[in-house]
Amino acid sequence: MTDRNARHQQSMQKLKTHVDGRVAAATEQRGLLMVFTGNGKGKTTAAWGTVTRALGYGYRVGVVQFIKGLWECGERERLAEDANLEVAVMATGFTWETQNRDSDIAACQNVWREAERMLADPGVYLVVLDELTYMLKFGYLDFATLEQALAKRPAEQTVIVTGRNAHRDLLAMADTVTEMQEIRHAFNDGLQARRGIDY
Amino acid sequence: MTDRNARHQQSMQKLKTHVDGRVAAATEQRGLLMVFTGNGKGKTTAAWGTVTRALGYGYRVGVVQFIKGLWECGERERLAEDANLEVAVMATGFTWETQNRDSDIAACQNVWREAERMLADPGVYLVVLDELTYMLKFGYLDFATLEQALAKRPAEQTVIVTGRNAHRDLLAMADTVTEMQEIRHAFNDGLQARRGIDY
Repeated sequence: MTDRNARHQQSMQKLKTHVDGRVAAATEQRGLLMVFTGNGKGKTTAAWGTVTRALGYGYRVGVVQFIKGLWECGERERLAEDANLEVAVMATGFTWETQNRDSDIAACQNVWREAERMLADPGVYLVVLDELTYMLKFGYLDFATLEQALAKRPAEQTVIVTGRNAHRDLLAMADTVTEMQEIRHAFNDGLQARRGIDY
Repeated sequence: MTDRNARHQQSMQKLKTHVDGRVAAATEQRGLLMVFTGNGKGKTTAAWGTVTRALGYGYRVGVVQFIKGLWECGERERLAEDANLEVAVMATGFTWETQNRDSDIAACQNVWREAERMLADPGVYLVVLDELTYMLKFGYLDFATLEQALAKRPAEQTVIVTGRNAHRDLLAMADTVTEMQEIRHAFNDGLQARRGIDY
């Protein structure tokens, strides 16, 4: 064995001891509250990646899409035939398209009822509240209402919330928070959004 | 209409003008090079979300998993029967498990050949090079080799690279870069990785 290999093995053994120790220290098991926030690409995409993952094990999944839902959406199409997936959609389009606060609020409240039902169902392993943060920011949904529904959900249920500008108290409640930071976005350089990639 | 509604409509109209202008300005169409990096959760997950999305439109997708591939993986299971998806796996496990630099390099080179084939195939719409950044960092793969394969790939092909500590020159080449920043991770608070959520 060369010196380089020996050094590599030694440093990897040290890393293994560290990793094994950390894995052993993680003993609590329950559903998680995860938030994907920030201004970069990948928040909704990571949520759908998790949906695909959970469906892969045969778990039941509920997805509630706030704001979006009018656009074509490849991931919804791909998974639509899965009996374990339920998708509820606000389907109003973006607020700058509707330009009507009252109808936005009514649509939000309607789809929120679907979310509440999923959050109360012990058979649902994963609930995605996609773009929910904007509902809080615009005042279409009370934080207290959300907090209550999250707090009393089944212990094994994981919830993912996505969207920019996540509410401070939501971040404080969360078990895992990732901020997707935009370093560069093709759209800003004049590149069109691509079918099957961006939507 | 109340004052609040009127103000809302006015500000949304302004936003719409801004958004429409930006959409109109994005005129270039080609495959993108996207990098999901950073120390937070969601890099591989966002890549798989994009895979699901592309498959939803019937595009062909190639995924090359560096490092990982021994673990159970719900998303691979869920999409495995899809004739449009090809997955190549290094399947060595983590470097701190193998502790053998020579066999790691050989495994990397083997799976890289699969990647090169996908990157040369105009029928493949999306190629994911999952955890590739570590191969560059450890010196298992030359940056020049990667750069060449990326540069001569078909114009319509999008490539996603994931992993921490992305190479500076790779970031410079990329059209879209998101840094997944860890704000909080459940694992650090003693919560176990969850089946169907974390893997």
